[in-house]
Amino acid sequence: MKATETDFQAWMGHVQARMEAALSRLLPQAQVAPARLHAAMRYATLEGGKRVRPLLVFAAGEVAGAAAARLEIAAAAVELIHAYSLAHDDLPCMDDDVLRRGKPTVHVEYGEATALLAGDALQSLAFQLLAEHRLADDPHAQLEMVKTLAAAAGSRGMAGGQQIDLEATGTSLGVPALEFMHIHKTGALIRAAVLLGSACGNSLGEAEKAKLDRYAKAVGLAFQVVDDILDCDASTATLGKTAGKDARQGKPTYVSAMGIARAREMAESLRGQALAAVQGLGGRAGRLVSLADFIVLRKF
Amino acid sequence: MKATETDFQAWMGHVQARMEAALSRLLPQAQVAPARLHAAMRYATLEGGKRVRPLLVFAAGEVAGAAAARLEIAAAAVELIHAYSLAHDDLPCMDDDVLRRGKPTVHVEYGEATALLAGDALQSLAFQLLAEHRLADDPHAQLEMVKTLAAAAGSRGMAGGQQIDLEATGTSLGVPALEFMHIHKTGALIRAAVLLGSACGNSLGEAEKAKLDRYAKAVGLAFQVVDDILDCDASTATLGKTAGKDARQGKPTYVSAMGIARAREMAESLRGQALAAVQGLGGRAGRLVSLADFIVLRKF
Repeated sequence: MKATETDFQAWMGHVQARMEAALSRLLPQAQVAPARLHAAMRYATLEGGKRVRPLLVFAAGEVAGAAAARLEIAAAAVELIHAYSLAHDDLPCMDDDVLRRGKPTVHVEYGEATALLAGDALQSLAFQLLAEHRLADDPHAQLEMVKTLAAAAGSRGMAGGQQIDLEATGTSLGVPALEFMHIHKTGALIRAAVLLGSACGNSLGEAEKAKLDRYAKAVGLAFQVVDDILDCDASTATLGKTAGKDARQGKPTYVSAMGIARAREMAESLRGQALAAVQGLGGRAGRLVSLADFIVLRKF
Repeated sequence: MKATETDFQAWMGHVQARMEAALSRLLPQAQVAPARLHAAMRYATLEGGKRVRPLLVFAAGEVAGAAAARLEIAAAAVELIHAYSLAHDDLPCMDDDVLRRGKPTVHVEYGEATALLAGDALQSLAFQLLAEHRLADDPHAQLEMVKTLAAAAGSRGMAGGQQIDLEATGTSLGVPALEFMHIHKTGALIRAAVLLGSACGNSLGEAEKAKLDRYAKAVGLAFQVVDDILDCDASTATLGKTAGKDARQGKPTYVSAMGIARAREMAESLRGQALAAVQGLGGRAGRLVSLADFIVLRKF
């Protein structure tokens, strides 16, 4: 392991631990009424996942010199939107999945109605956090952050991507249609993570913002391509969620559309695009570079 | 019909028509992709209901001299939260209802998965609207509006009330527990409507804000008591939703807790409290007074 890689691993562990503590503090405590709802919200969010979106918030924040105390709130808001989408996505009327992050899904643990409400309330909490903490020097910029996250979560963002996914199940999609789906389903929120992270710091110029945007788009798509490869390639134990379910559910994936070898090439090419996008930002973008590597080269 | 009553009816009709047009404009058009999701969002929101929450936004806005162009956006945001909650509440895993506002419920018309996503996306859109239009002179005040709506919708507001409702079904609750449930389930969003309406205008003093808050709490509870009375008293045709379903589903109501005669007395007493709360505001509160009368004396 190279020195920079060891350093990146340490940074990642630090951000992940910080986020776990922040989310635990920002979520309502499990004994506060309605206790079962709050327990379900915590179950859906805590001890879960690689925290890729929060890592992107922190990495983009370094480009803009943002304070960690602000980044932690913005990252929590993005992660709550992500957690709500997983809780709803796993429901019987959607993907009907029973395993997530190595644990029973929220509705298996708490029942469908509570899982539905927990997802709903996690979404509300995300916007509450963005509004009630001071995250930008200019309150207009902070309102812009609320708008960015809302648009990324909504019908022309993540929820729209889920709808396209729903309608595509059982059909075969070409690569352009797959890309359209994933730009919405996964890409929109990953892009929001990068934008919100940089918005917590010094105002960037248009050219710098455009670089971050190109980075975010490439990384967002790469994330999904690698997800498709892992779903077909890795085991349930490694993933902590049901492996091979895309194929069984008849979902079109990059692997089904282009085969695993070309999907690997595509992920590698997107990694190249992400790195090229932020090259001009210099050392400030070091974490973004390492994260693009991590996202594409991960094994889980 | 008295002159003031005719005037109130005309005002109500005007606000309702204005809101229908505003919501139709602010919702994504049905031909925009993903078209089925957007159609479901429009179906869940348009041509529906009495628009009690938007009416409260406009009536409270008059107290603070707010511009109608701002009130219409704030009212749309509140109404989108209400529409999303109905779409989710009607789902099979919640109340499992097939009729709402005289039409098949969203999941009956579009399927469960699309109804779920439409509700999710309506919630996102509500916050997007509050962030992307200029609604207050001071952007800090506008961030406060986002916080108010998010808190009202979340686990310590409306979604929390739904959870309490869920857990209370099949049990009998005393009046204090019923009140706790409804302060969350219906009251929080009605209170947010009043607060958001007044926030669109001139900054009010603390004493005036406290009056509006007392009004909103009394009206919010009165609204629910009257709902319970109508559910047991009116026909499905009059209500446009399934009548008598509270009793059939074993839901505790004010009627089951105290009998219909005492529930009527309670509604009347809450109307008195609402009127007393805004008495000191003078003519500016005229619409709030008429609305309290309308909410308690309505037959549907």
